[in-house]
Amino acid sequence: MSDSAFHGVFPYLVSPVDADGRVRTDVLARLCDDLIAAGVHGLAALGSTGEFAYLDWEQQREVVATVVEAAAGRVPVLAGVAATTIAEAQRRAGAFAQMRCDGIIAILEAYFPIADDGVQAYFESIARAVDLPLVLYTNPNFQRSDLSLPVIERLSRVPNIVGIKDASSNTGRLLSILDRVEGRMQVFAASAHIPACVMLIGGVGWMAGPACIAPRQSVALYEACRDRDWTRAMDLQRPLWRLNQAFAKYNLAACIKGGLELQGYAVGAPLPPQAPLSPAGVDEVRAALQAIGALPNHGG
Amino acid sequence: MSDSAFHGVFPYLVSPVDADGRVRTDVLARLCDDLIAAGVHGLAALGSTGEFAYLDWEQQREVVATVVEAAAGRVPVLAGVAATTIAEAQRRAGAFAQMRCDGIIAILEAYFPIADDGVQAYFESIARAVDLPLVLYTNPNFQRSDLSLPVIERLSRVPNIVGIKDASSNTGRLLSILDRVEGRMQVFAASAHIPACVMLIGGVGWMAGPACIAPRQSVALYEACRDRDWTRAMDLQRPLWRLNQAFAKYNLAACIKGGLELQGYAVGAPLPPQAPLSPAGVDEVRAALQAIGALPNHGG
Amino acid sequence: MSDSAFHGVFPYLVSPVDADGRVRTDVLARLCDDLIAAGVHGLAALGSTGEFAYLDWEQQREVVATVVEAAAGRVPVLAGVAATTIAEAQRRAGAFAQMRCDGIIAILEAYFPIADDGVQAYFESIARAVDLPLVLYTNPNFQRSDLSLPVIERLSRVPNIVGIKDASSNTGRLLSILDRVEGRMQVFAASAHIPACVMLIGGVGWMAGPACIAPRQSVALYEACRDRDWTRAMDLQRPLWRLNQAFAKYNLAACIKGGLELQGYAVGAPLPPQAPLSPAGVDEVRAALQAIGALPNHGG
Amino acid sequence: MSDSAFHGVFPYLVSPVDADGRVRTDVLARLCDDLIAAGVHGLAALGSTGEFAYLDWEQQREVVATVVEAAAGRVPVLAGVAATTIAEAQRRAGAFAQMRCDGIIAILEAYFPIADDGVQAYFESIARAVDLPLVLYTNPNFQRSDLSLPVIERLSRVPNIVGIKDASSNTGRLLSILDRVEGRMQVFAASAHIPACVMLIGGVGWMAGPACIAPRQSVALYEACRDRDWTRAMDLQRPLWRLNQAFAKYNLAACIKGGLELQGYAVGAPLPPQAPLSPAGVDEVRAALQAIGALPNHGG
Repeated sequence: MSDSAFHGVFPYLVSPVDADGRVRTDVLARLCDDLIAAGVHGLAALGSTGEFAYLDWEQQREVVATVVEAAAGRVPVLAGVAATTIAEAQRRAGAFAQMRCDGIIAILEAYFPIADDGVQAYFESIARAVDLPLVLYTNPNFQRSDLSLPVIERLSRVPNIVGIKDASSNTGRLLSILDRVEGRMQVFAASAHIPACVMLIGGVGWMAGPACIAPRQSVALYEACRDRDWTRAMDLQRPLWRLNQAFAKYNLAACIKGGLELQGYAVGAPLPPQAPLSPAGVDEVRAALQAIGALPNHGG
Repeated sequence: MSDSAFHGVFPYLVSPVDADGRVRTDVLARLCDDLIAAGVHGLAALGSTGEFAYLDWEQQREVVATVVEAAAGRVPVLAGVAATTIAEAQRRAGAFAQMRCDGIIAILEAYFPIADDGVQAYFESIARAVDLPLVLYTNPNFQRSDLSLPVIERLSRVPNIVGIKDASSNTGRLLSILDRVEGRMQVFAASAHIPACVMLIGGVGWMAGPACIAPRQSVALYEACRDRDWTRAMDLQRPLWRLNQAFAKYNLAACIKGGLELQGYAVGAPLPPQAPLSPAGVDEVRAALQAIGALPNHGG
Repeated sequence: MSDSAFHGVFPYLVSPVDADGRVRTDVLARLCDDLIAAGVHGLAALGSTGEFAYLDWEQQREVVATVVEAAAGRVPVLAGVAATTIAEAQRRAGAFAQMRCDGIIAILEAYFPIADDGVQAYFESIARAVDLPLVLYTNPNFQRSDLSLPVIERLSRVPNIVGIKDASSNTGRLLSILDRVEGRMQVFAASAHIPACVMLIGGVGWMAGPACIAPRQSVALYEACRDRDWTRAMDLQRPLWRLNQAFAKYNLAACIKGGLELQGYAVGAPLPPQAPLSPAGVDEVRAALQAIGALPNHGG
Repeated sequence: MSDSAFHGVFPYLVSPVDADGRVRTDVLARLCDDLIAAGVHGLAALGSTGEFAYLDWEQQREVVATVVEAAAGRVPVLAGVAATTIAEAQRRAGAFAQMRCDGIIAILEAYFPIADDGVQAYFESIARAVDLPLVLYTNPNFQRSDLSLPVIERLSRVPNIVGIKDASSNTGRLLSILDRVEGRMQVFAASAHIPACVMLIGGVGWMAGPACIAPRQSVALYEACRDRDWTRAMDLQRPLWRLNQAFAKYNLAACIKGGLELQGYAVGAPLPPQAPLSPAGVDEVRAALQAIGALPNHGG
């Protein structure tokens, strides 16, 4: 892995939007600033946690512009591109490239099932359309399409496709991917994986919503893994996993937004008709954050 | 059912789009004209067959405008509204209302699962936003959300929610819906149901892609059902079901577009990365159309 | 269909077993007697409702022996054979044949998925092993294997495979089967279908648990369908469907056993660790039975 | 973990059965002998790989008797008990206890879904019925029931329930289990997990079919993990995972039996209608075994 390659902890940023549909750019910028101060290695806008599926194009542009400006070149910024057609995906990736993000996270949305050839064509077409590194993102829990191992292997030969984040809960699939791509593509863990395990088998980091609300703890875990100090890594991993478990019960965006509100970021609720985090959820998230020292124990 | 209520055969129109992304308005207008001449009772734009999930907003507007103009008030035109947020759905429904369509088919897209309250709020909010009748559309095969029976019952009490099209293959669910809504809402069959059965249990018609390529046969079946001549209905139903079966194997939009191409409509292929109908699929669709007299037997 | 072919209403009998594992043969015999008096056209032992998956071999033998003796040739008795291996299925079918049942309902249980060839071999092997008519039974909701249309078509050419009961909720699949088998095999509805619809499209009857507790109403519906009086059929169908809906919420065996207990048959609860019908379930079943006149309105 | 607790590599033994249904006791005994010589820490009879779902009771007894006799106390022998009823499970566990196996692997088979209370009652009842340690086995891929985290936590408080093998592919679930049971229960990996990862997070070993054909390599991996030499562990893990991947494509029993045949054990094919390993599968298994040195490269 060269020095410039993506690696480490990339929080999946929430997208704070007020009741009138305006992006709260000041809140988002402050969050980016604080995350960078906490040591994260990059920022990822418009992932699942960032409600890419719920924002209109103007909101998406506003989010990416805000994050690029806030990062100010200190860490790489990845922007999520999700579309059902090649034409729309190329248009969006091109627009984000002009906004000077450092890479694209590419997502295939689908209504009807897409065969392997179509999946491959979609990602290759985005890669051709921009002069930026691309990270593939696949989430079989929420998306109707998936990337098969043969497609991943073929895509790993496209020069500017540099990584993959697979959000299935199947860590063994990640090891199979690593075996297939033979170093041509980096593998990132997602919220559904145990980061320490993914690092052990050859991953280079993780992209995940919970890193938004536990950035210091996530960076400490990454450093323990990078130092191959697996005993320390597991000591840090266990409490972080408890946080993940708490989140797995609820809408991911609602959870991360709820946690950030507790930490003093006025990010609001997810876009309706998604429900805000329930009072019971708020209590659970508060307890989980307090347990890892990500929230003061008094009040909250 | 009043005279003005929606009933009968509503073909789900394809959306012909050329390689540059322009809607082929002339082809679409001619198709609408021919379908009305064949006796259909209404036209439905931007359903699954109409690739609502693949068209950008300009393309969607162009499709609806073309269909409204082509129909010229001869039959009602329904326009599909599909969104993940209430705000976007209301915006789209409002725009279609201004374009003078006769009703809205409302679809809830989702990324994260939505609880019953959110599902209800979504559809109620659209109904409040427009002064038009609304038909609910739910397709558990391709959509991430579904409408539970209690939600359907509650929505049936909203005055301008007048119908539902459920595209599950579960006809028994339709009977359960009919039992629950007690006449406050009409039920339409979809491609996945046997229309004759749905008419027997109390349905008022069907909205389906295959009616685009077999309009006369569909209308004849509807009339047999309406006359409660079930023997004739089943004689007409059987060959039409064979057509449906042929379509169930392939991408629905690719199939209907492929069939229309055989019938001389230059509707093109579905939007990439969706694949066009394969040569084997073309052969199968040709044979199925010839078998019901919807295509000359020589050449094709 | 010859006069001797299976047709009409076949209640899926419960298997009353006491806490010590003994079959309550007297209760079962009285139930058979009463069902025959109510006009049912046959009796089916060891279906899903009969807890075939929960009874040991001795209990299964006892159930079939009791039903054959109780029927005394007045109506045909079908015995369910469910196994994972060909060898075991042949052994059981042979044993039931010796006990003088009139036909076999054959079920393929599986742990690992079975390819089409294996599925076909399983059913053909049972057909070869006995000199009795065979009805195929497939229930994709609870079984790990399913019968594809090509396999069903090939099996329809085996002389003593005479029928199929498909317990998916997909009535369209039944029409596709009818289209494929061209009269070589009869189709029966299951609890998941609307019997009136299945009769309309060409079915010859139904095999279902609820017929145990509503035999007269089921027979009346069958007769309306047979007379092709579809208006009367639907009048009878609607309240019966409400009963079905009530059952769809609960463990099927628990429901039918609970309903029979209300009707005065001491059939007990399903075998542990299955739970007996909950108090709320008892209330719902009582109300559903009262609504169709299958239980006196006072007390119960 | 006391010295006597189960830990390490437990191959899931195949069940060699000839065409007449007789267990090939000599082949099975020789396999057990060779596995013990290769260093495995225990033997597990009648797991998924052992076709527990396909053997009749006499065959199951014969398999367990053979393994207990072959092990001769050198390593612990676990016997699989799978049933749908509590009564049958207790009967079988009692019989195996009398045959002097060292522990029970308990599996809940189900036809209708079972609520948490029933699942708990099933396993507790088996634990009460025998004076032997119990390991829970859950395989959501092939079984209709699953164990929820709250049920697992409650079962971990039953004194002689000592372990769990969860065969989902979700390693994160194992970490959640470890977090919940706080040392009262040991966790074993299955074929679907990466053993090195499971050992890292706190597992004590694995129970898996592939260990039958790669026992020395599995034991070497276990020892590297136990020594916490994770670099060596991953060097051993990668080629073993390739073997696992090859197996994931085919029926597991067919694969392991096919591999053992290549290694000179006349274990035969899985019981019909399961298909034997296809010629392509044989080639793939041969290559995978040669790649890890579990088969000579010439001939085979």
